[in-house]
Amino acid sequence: MNIPQTSFPRVIIIGGGFAGLAAAKGLEKQEVQVVLIDKHNYHTFQPLLYQVATGGLEPDSIAFPLRKRFNDVENFYFRLTEVEKINPKNNTIETSIGNLEYDQLIIATGSTTNFFGNTNIQKYAMEMKSIPQSLNIRSLIIENFEDALLTSNIEERNALMNFVIVGGGPTGVELAGALAEMKKGILPKDYPDLDIRQMQINLIQSSDCLLKGMSEKASEKAEDFLIKLGVNVWKNLRVLDYNGKIVTTNGEDHFKTETVIWAAGVKGKTIDGLHAECIIERAARIKVDEFNQVLHHPNIYAIGDVACMSSEKNPYGHPMMAQPAIQQGRLVAKNIVAKLFNKEQKAFVYKDKGSMATIGRNKAVVDLPKWKFQGVFAWFVWMFVHLFSLIGFRNKAIVFLNWMYNYIRFDRETRLIIRPYKKKKTII
Amino acid sequence: MNIPQTSFPRVIIIGGGFAGLAAAKGLEKQEVQVVLIDKHNYHTFQPLLYQVATGGLEPDSIAFPLRKRFNDVENFYFRLTEVEKINPKNNTIETSIGNLEYDQLIIATGSTTNFFGNTNIQKYAMEMKSIPQSLNIRSLIIENFEDALLTSNIEERNALMNFVIVGGGPTGVELAGALAEMKKGILPKDYPDLDIRQMQINLIQSSDCLLKGMSEKASEKAEDFLIKLGVNVWKNLRVLDYNGKIVTTNGEDHFKTETVIWAAGVKGKTIDGLHAECIIERAARIKVDEFNQVLHHPNIYAIGDVACMSSEKNPYGHPMMAQPAIQQGRLVAKNIVAKLFNKEQKAFVYKDKGSMATIGRNKAVVDLPKWKFQGVFAWFVWMFVHLFSLIGFRNKAIVFLNWMYNYIRFDRETRLIIRPYKKKKTII
Repeated sequence: MNIPQTSFPRVIIIGGGFAGLAAAKGLEKQEVQVVLIDKHNYHTFQPLLYQVATGGLEPDSIAFPLRKRFNDVENFYFRLTEVEKINPKNNTIETSIGNLEYDQLIIATGSTTNFFGNTNIQKYAMEMKSIPQSLNIRSLIIENFEDALLTSNIEERNALMNFVIVGGGPTGVELAGALAEMKKGILPKDYPDLDIRQMQINLIQSSDCLLKGMSEKASEKAEDFLIKLGVNVWKNLRVLDYNGKIVTTNGEDHFKTETVIWAAGVKGKTIDGLHAECIIERAARIKVDEFNQVLHHPNIYAIGDVACMSSEKNPYGHPMMAQPAIQQGRLVAKNIVAKLFNKEQKAFVYKDKGSMATIGRNKAVVDLPKWKFQGVFAWFVWMFVHLFSLIGFRNKAIVFLNWMYNYIRFDRETRLIIRPYKKKKTII
Repeated sequence: MNIPQTSFPRVIIIGGGFAGLAAAKGLEKQEVQVVLIDKHNYHTFQPLLYQVATGGLEPDSIAFPLRKRFNDVENFYFRLTEVEKINPKNNTIETSIGNLEYDQLIIATGSTTNFFGNTNIQKYAMEMKSIPQSLNIRSLIIENFEDALLTSNIEERNALMNFVIVGGGPTGVELAGALAEMKKGILPKDYPDLDIRQMQINLIQSSDCLLKGMSEKASEKAEDFLIKLGVNVWKNLRVLDYNGKIVTTNGEDHFKTETVIWAAGVKGKTIDGLHAECIIERAARIKVDEFNQVLHHPNIYAIGDVACMSSEKNPYGHPMMAQPAIQQGRLVAKNIVAKLFNKEQKAFVYKDKGSMATIGRNKAVVDLPKWKFQGVFAWFVWMFVHLFSLIGFRNKAIVFLNWMYNYIRFDRETRLIIRPYKKKKTII
């Protein structure tokens, strides 16, 4: 990989998401060599992917070049590749661009979509965990409407205008809300020949409430907002299969649709080579102790979505969200430095800063530790928290400008099919 | 195609570029039914493609959704498809989504890259006529530098850092300048391990001057600017072949490079079905009379790049640029209305508003009919003319913000590999 051997210990970080980025920042001015590895050359601000998928934001404004973030950091190296295997015995990682030895390894690979073994759904449903995937959804939505115009077969047309989102977590709720706003303000104008009332947005949740991790009030209000926006909310309904045409469920309702967006689960993105006992099969997460150290591997840490730190309070680990990832990333940097200087490591204590979700224009729900509120003010809070969490002045400014424009004009202008999703042939 | 038959005559416009868009706008409030067909659902502002290719602008801000532009226009229909054939005998066009009859047809298909029959170059060189193509170039540039880091073979590394741009027209000049600015301000910071001085930007022009259509002063000054920016300008050198590794020329110089961007020529994008006598083989353009009517086909018009209106002043037709396209589009709309109401059509007279090119920060050349100037002021003129030519307030605002940011920070932040170009496997 052409990385110089120095007298500083080498820390390899796999993944430039929230966790990996926080760890790399924490190690900036320390006496270590940092090698950050990611398959993308940018950090993705995942909470806003749904806005890219629905034409509200440009993909480039929620991405930030990883090299740029560490431009002026000494002893920092970035490599664009995927890690294929870890060899704990000789402390190396294997990648397609060569192997590399580490002194300390941080696994921050994040999570991937969990289809729970259903290969049909995996084949036919859309995922939304990355920018290219979100752009695929954006293309597909518009391609569906273009196709709906062309058919005089009503059943076919309805299937094209029927959107099924599986999973009532923040991703599903935010996406359903954004689609509902497209239905209200944009699609009737773009497709005056279609009866947009026939467009259906179905949000399917297997349990009895939306936004499971949030307060009861937030959950109820979110459902209320969605219903007012015209979303069909299905609770206690479990999707069993999807063959590309029909979604079958454990209830009486089946859905004829061309578009299923699967937001019903995530699992850790583990890497081969760790001791079998470190991996929790069910969620594909890596067992870590209170210092985020991986079981049996004292110089390997796992942080963020892929790590499962089981405690009395959180028997199944922390929620797979940005906040625990960032906090673990920060602490792990400190702990590694402490360990290298033979100081004591600090145990991780998750500080729940609250959570929030936006359903649409002026409609959001916010749960702070001591205050829970919903509606217009929540929406403004949501907006500013997300704005300030973006990396970089340019991204903040562009996103802000887009939001102002969209708010004032009731519009989402980037409804472009840059790369078609449906058509196999490349249109360039 | 599911387009209703009305009592109004139907005008089909093929292509939503500068020419087609101007024609469609001109027909907005007239008593005709307009059907606009394009393979993309957006209009591309082609003069800024090179900025997308070099990470200065986001692709979405130089595209504008065609449906949105005509949201409130009655009797307007947009269809997303490619026209495969014209049948002048029964006045229909053929597409993959069905055939459609026209009363008047406007061909505004624009132009495509001209490889002058060299299939090797076509296979291995990059084109820059569309947004996806520009994004491919953007990905390739960064992928090259990522790869250059990995090799210790100096020849290989130099080939990765060697960029050959063929064609000294506005596209080649602007792209070479933008690459030179990346070399100066961005790449040394992003790749401190590489000796960026080894990056070569070669601009090859077969004739003895750059920016052929512009004034001698502009041409000289542009060359001067490029040389100051460190671009190797090769004049009177003709590229003969490129096998993916080596560019061979008619001179003594050959270039070992992984990247050739072909901006050496365009040709019309004609459609099958027209009378053989209408087509000028050499440039693949359609012969039109002074009303842009196609020879032998009185109800078919061709406008913009694909049309060749030969006159004493312009024996080879008008320059294949935005201005003639827009002016012809506007006039053809009026002429069609005139013809339908049995009034006289007006002959097209090209009003040359001048031309301009930007080489880099504070460096541009502007030729107005009565005033030619270069440098900082020219750069500001270039900037504002392009800004105001963009469609839509949002695009203008976002582009302006990006330019301000890039200007103040000497930066180009969208250096992202959203879809890898080199790696065949899809990284999502």
